Amino acid sequence: MKAEIISVGTEILLGDIVNTNAQYISRRLADLGIFVYYQSVVGDNPERMRTAYELAFSRADLVITTGGLGPTQDDLTKEIAAQYFNKKLILDEYSLERIKCFFRKLNRPMGESNVKQAKMPESCVILVNNNGTAPGCIIDENGKTMVLMPGPPKEMKAMFEESVVPYLQKFIDGKLVSKILRFAGIGESAMAEIVSDLIDNGINPTVAPYAKEFECILRITAKATTEKGAEELIEPVEEEIRKRLGKYIYGTGEVPLEFVLGEVLIRNHLTIATAESCTGGLLAGKLINYPGISAAFLEGMVTYTNDAKVKRLGVKVETLEKFGAVSPETAEEMAKGVAIACGTNIGISTTGIAGPGGGTEDKPVGLVYIGIFINGKTKTQKLELSRSRDSVRNRAVREALNLLRLELQRINVT
Amino acid sequence: MKAEIISVGTEILLGDIVNTNAQYISRRLADLGIFVYYQSVVGDNPERMRTAYELAFSRADLVITTGGLGPTQDDLTKEIAAQYFNKKLILDEYSLERIKCFFRKLNRPMGESNVKQAKMPESCVILVNNNGTAPGCIIDENGKTMVLMPGPPKEMKAMFEESVVPYLQKFIDGKLVSKILRFAGIGESAMAEIVSDLIDNGINPTVAPYAKEFECILRITAKATTEKGAEELIEPVEEEIRKRLGKYIYGTGEVPLEFVLGEVLIRNHLTIATAESCTGGLLAGKLINYPGISAAFLEGMVTYTNDAKVKRLGVKVETLEKFGAVSPETAEEMAKGVAIACGTNIGISTTGIAGPGGGTEDKPVGLVYIGIFINGKTKTQKLELSRSRDSVRNRAVREALNLLRLELQRINVT
Repeated sequence: MKAEIISVGTEILLGDIVNTNAQYISRRLADLGIFVYYQSVVGDNPERMRTAYELAFSRADLVITTGGLGPTQDDLTKEIAAQYFNKKLILDEYSLERIKCFFRKLNRPMGESNVKQAKMPESCVILVNNNGTAPGCIIDENGKTMVLMPGPPKEMKAMFEESVVPYLQKFIDGKLVSKILRFAGIGESAMAEIVSDLIDNGINPTVAPYAKEFECILRITAKATTEKGAEELIEPVEEEIRKRLGKYIYGTGEVPLEFVLGEVLIRNHLTIATAESCTGGLLAGKLINYPGISAAFLEGMVTYTNDAKVKRLGVKVETLEKFGAVSPETAEEMAKGVAIACGTNIGISTTGIAGPGGGTEDKPVGLVYIGIFINGKTKTQKLELSRSRDSVRNRAVREALNLLRLELQRINVT
Repeated sequence: MKAEIISVGTEILLGDIVNTNAQYISRRLADLGIFVYYQSVVGDNPERMRTAYELAFSRADLVITTGGLGPTQDDLTKEIAAQYFNKKLILDEYSLERIKCFFRKLNRPMGESNVKQAKMPESCVILVNNNGTAPGCIIDENGKTMVLMPGPPKEMKAMFEESVVPYLQKFIDGKLVSKILRFAGIGESAMAEIVSDLIDNGINPTVAPYAKEFECILRITAKATTEKGAEELIEPVEEEIRKRLGKYIYGTGEVPLEFVLGEVLIRNHLTIATAESCTGGLLAGKLINYPGISAAFLEGMVTYTNDAKVKRLGVKVETLEKFGAVSPETAEEMAKGVAIACGTNIGISTTGIAGPGGGTEDKPVGLVYIGIFINGKTKTQKLELSRSRDSVRNRAVREALNLLRLELQRINVT
């Protein structure tokens, strides 16, 4: 099955917004085994929209649009689609009631223009919008399927997952199952190289690497007649990947690293405090992403000056003088010092040169030391990071979290 | 002049990457007064690429492509463009030398395949790539102009600004000048409403609002025969906007709020410390974005627990018991306490309920208090923020920075 995505909206053509909808839908269609041959963007112009629909259906069986379902005169996606399929628009009472209800909840009056949003092409499948006013719809006729969804990403994504994916199942023979493995402490290219045979030769399952900012993932996707069958195909491949890369895998699915770590800390009744220099609060800020973290994270110190390192953390003046603030010795004393000062089981520290200034030949920009103190013992790790100030700091945060994860694993705290 | 953007790359159709290039180019063309009627994405397929070029030139005079200039067999944008314009590809020695030089700097051997990147369509304008190996080019013939640029955003943006914008000037009569005003402490819709007459009726200059995450801007754009003439047109409009919205404008151009604040602090020899509860280190982390901040920012404390608030900041146990941790009283004592503990002129604090749990009817998720202590006096501000945990924390950080900016302004520290 061939699909095309048409994003409707002059604001995209003006560059006011980034078209993340096209990326999201493309990714999810790829997951389902439906290939996208073209994405296009067209403004809120009836003629150009009609031409775009005609062109898309000359090349594809499935056309998915986003945008243009709003209440204003400019919003024409549904109207032009109805024309294209030669269908009337009929007021759908259930949709209207839902829109009214939406406004009641907000304590705001519904405008007369919103009635337009409840007029749907006859005999279409109506897609409920749980996050906004505009319902979507699917028109399915003579082998042409058109899916219309609203433009706001939050509304679109929910509608796509709740209603469109189940509908599209009928076009897919068999079940597609994906499993995501999440990595830390290794870059995308190094990771991909180690499993390049699986990436290059994998047909069912396929193995695909993806890099996000400061992390990378592998997605294993299998197709079978049943979900269980697909999972069974994934299993040996996952095992093989774990054999080669296991220590870099911190989780599966959509869970971020700090959540995995937060859960381990809380499950083991461990408390933690942070002492940050170059990361300036970002390590604490990342840890507290995990909503339940207050049971484990007690305190953080941003000791930017040497004075603060001495006064708050008990770093020795001699250590700073002899080895400098950016040194394994200082990182060690910071980690231990913050744990003692805050009465926690774990202390974790960062000290480094984030740049752009401040680097020397011996201690260049990007040099960072992480200190980890757990139950009386301290470890340090040297990092040599590169690129911008922002990147050095964010990567240092990620490495620190991962080092703590590995250290806990090493002492059998899981 | 009508323009179209074609982004080339199967990775976009698979949803592996978001097409930010199309947004960037669209925005910049809009700035130049060139309107984009369509954006499209096509895979690395010769036939489909050729069809896409033909379609684009049937609708537009200027076609801009990104991607497909790499060294592999898949990279075909230039080859198909040469075919389309009936031109040979000729090795450009200067481009080859630049590619060789690029690899020498990285201390890596140049692959034979990279030679392909230096073969350019005859009689084209070659666009130097200062950030990668692939040069771009412009083919300009019979009223059709095609601009080919590499896909990596960093390479594309630099090439666009350095070479493409100057080239496009010949299609634009007169000079376009834009001025950006940056706002804090006001939302996009409220801002836009106050100057809606200027936005709706402005022709030369035009006034356009844009919302980014946690901030909004107004862009004033004027066209005249000279740059100075355009600036003179902007001046009275800017004055009028400042008259209505002046207190929300923290800067112009591309400078973030924390840079403006950092400069004020350093210029006035002021020192600052942070005491954070709900923002958990993000406020300190934002402040230290400004590279020279170590002269002003001495220390930060993430006092997540009540204990820590008492011990580190001297918040009174009675205050916590009587008013709770999320209260103006606690915010005040935190701000004052951290300034005293760290010996700074300024103390700034946050305490609130970031959610998703922890809210009550009296103190719902999103309730945040900011405390600001300057030279002996403390002010607090209540915020009622909404949406996700992440959003509450990041908006609280932004509000805190802006409140400090306003407070400094009020006491004539600029």
